[in-house]
Amino acid sequence: MSKIVIDLMGGDAGSEITIKAIKSYLNSVKIDENNDSFILVGDNKALESLSEVKDKPYIKLVKSKTVVAMDVDPMSALKDKESSLMVAVKELLDNDYDSIISAGSTGALLTASIFKIKRIEGVKRPGLITTLPTYIENKKTVMLDLGANLENTAEELAQFGLLGSIYYNLAFNEAKPKVFLLNNGTEEEKGRNEHKEAHQLLKNDSRINFVGNIEGREVLSGNADVVVSDGFSGNIFLKTTEGTVKLVTSLLKDAIYSSTKTKIAGLLLKSKMSEFKEKLNYKNIGGAMLIGVNKIVIKAHGSSDEKAFLSAIKLANDLGNKKLVEKVKEKLKENN
Amino acid sequence: MSKIVIDLMGGDAGSEITIKAIKSYLNSVKIDENNDSFILVGDNKALESLSEVKDKPYIKLVKSKTVVAMDVDPMSALKDKESSLMVAVKELLDNDYDSIISAGSTGALLTASIFKIKRIEGVKRPGLITTLPTYIENKKTVMLDLGANLENTAEELAQFGLLGSIYYNLAFNEAKPKVFLLNNGTEEEKGRNEHKEAHQLLKNDSRINFVGNIEGREVLSGNADVVVSDGFSGNIFLKTTEGTVKLVTSLLKDAIYSSTKTKIAGLLLKSKMSEFKEKLNYKNIGGAMLIGVNKIVIKAHGSSDEKAFLSAIKLANDLGNKKLVEKVKEKLKENN
Repeated sequence: MSKIVIDLMGGDAGSEITIKAIKSYLNSVKIDENNDSFILVGDNKALESLSEVKDKPYIKLVKSKTVVAMDVDPMSALKDKESSLMVAVKELLDNDYDSIISAGSTGALLTASIFKIKRIEGVKRPGLITTLPTYIENKKTVMLDLGANLENTAEELAQFGLLGSIYYNLAFNEAKPKVFLLNNGTEEEKGRNEHKEAHQLLKNDSRINFVGNIEGREVLSGNADVVVSDGFSGNIFLKTTEGTVKLVTSLLKDAIYSSTKTKIAGLLLKSKMSEFKEKLNYKNIGGAMLIGVNKIVIKAHGSSDEKAFLSAIKLANDLGNKKLVEKVKEKLKENN
Repeated sequence: MSKIVIDLMGGDAGSEITIKAIKSYLNSVKIDENNDSFILVGDNKALESLSEVKDKPYIKLVKSKTVVAMDVDPMSALKDKESSLMVAVKELLDNDYDSIISAGSTGALLTASIFKIKRIEGVKRPGLITTLPTYIENKKTVMLDLGANLENTAEELAQFGLLGSIYYNLAFNEAKPKVFLLNNGTEEEKGRNEHKEAHQLLKNDSRINFVGNIEGREVLSGNADVVVSDGFSGNIFLKTTEGTVKLVTSLLKDAIYSSTKTKIAGLLLKSKMSEFKEKLNYKNIGGAMLIGVNKIVIKAHGSSDEKAFLSAIKLANDLGNKKLVEKVKEKLKENN
């Protein structure tokens, strides 16, 4: 029951990866031909390599001419109506599909979402949300905003608490997700003015199960379901976790390569190490979603491999089936 | 040639650890009795356990009555003149010593420093600076501000670039330290207004070797000598690295304990793993320093063990010998 538009272009690896992921998705899930459908947007070459699926009734191929550059000025990207991104956005809106996935420029996708797909009525600012691994097996935490905004008011932060709760509830079937506010200390009066005010707003919103402030060192502990952050700090947080994982794994690799004894240890650990890397791999998450606009907008990692892009398609399908956008609209109408 | 005041109290483990560290320091370095000296401040019990060194000509023991609580309101801590912290600050100033070390409340130490030790003339805002490990063997990066401030203006950020450069130059003997600005993207126009303006100020300051913006994922890469950040983001950064290291090492431990084969691997890796943990251990750094006030103020970790506190004493001695405060004063007088 999910209708998905996919921008085949963009992404560091071009359309090859996105097409492989789509084929793998179509081969691995049971398509409901009456309800599921896909619009795939790309250049001639991309569409040609989809010839084996082009006659399926649930697939529509749409041609685009250009590709938005990764470092483009987002406003000028909006003007290039023949880019795969803007053609995909137009198809999404004209055909009233549920979701769009792109691995292209984050800035262009966010700007196109805000100006064309538009905010849900009542949403102050959309936020980028993603799922994070934690110390606890199978326990996930979601965090927003990860950088759609540079600064956020207290009211915007408090609303991220609500949006994050709805997302967590649908994605992980948790009735009352535990919400925390990223801050420089756990005490109620910590942080900049917007954090202090947001703390009070979150505490007093009956739709939100707010627990309190959380520091950077505790976000991955598994205690939180939803972590609210201003966009700048959230961006710093996310990129810092990436850099730190890289530091630790590079030091570990050095340790393993340092002697014959440790190389043997490395071999014995090999399969476990791959599992371990999988747990820390953002590719298993499927990218980030812009929550608060009228469609499900998924930003797949620019460096997406097939697996990452496949996760993005699954995420779009899952959230589309669960009617995320409608749920946000309902919840915003409830009194707080 | 370094005169150090040490607050023996505070810290999660009480005076036992700090005293052990001092004894170990006195036993491991060559004291220059004409130039080196120590004022050690603590309660009766702490001073009693220092009886073996109390007659040394270069040691003065001073009694304090109370201890500042870790979660104290910093301004009220200033009023408790009999606390080990406030007695230590008084001894520092009355005797014109070079540096002070405390493992107690960060807030109280910072507040006492700003109100009693006072900013160096020309310093807009002092900043907390510390040394970080990187992917590159033996290569260190320093970062400031880590949380002495909640927000910083462009001018304050630019001055952190200068203060950080002076620190790095003295600590690591690098003539032109490479300075970066922590931001949400590498492009010049990224960030909030204060980051955009700071970028330009840093670029145009001839005393600073400014390279550009840096993202959270690159801070630990070893490319930067000095990373400038506003206090809120710096605090998020530092705590996030701690939390992520904990996540990765906890997953690694799970991997090692999962089977006999991996347990054997764990044994083979054991000594390398300790080396590896050492590299990531903030205890080897000696804590953070408040740069920009008229004395060397070192905040040892609250959870300091003997080794961590020993590093803090070595750091105080090193920066005192190298006349950090005087160097800052000189550099501020140069034209930019």
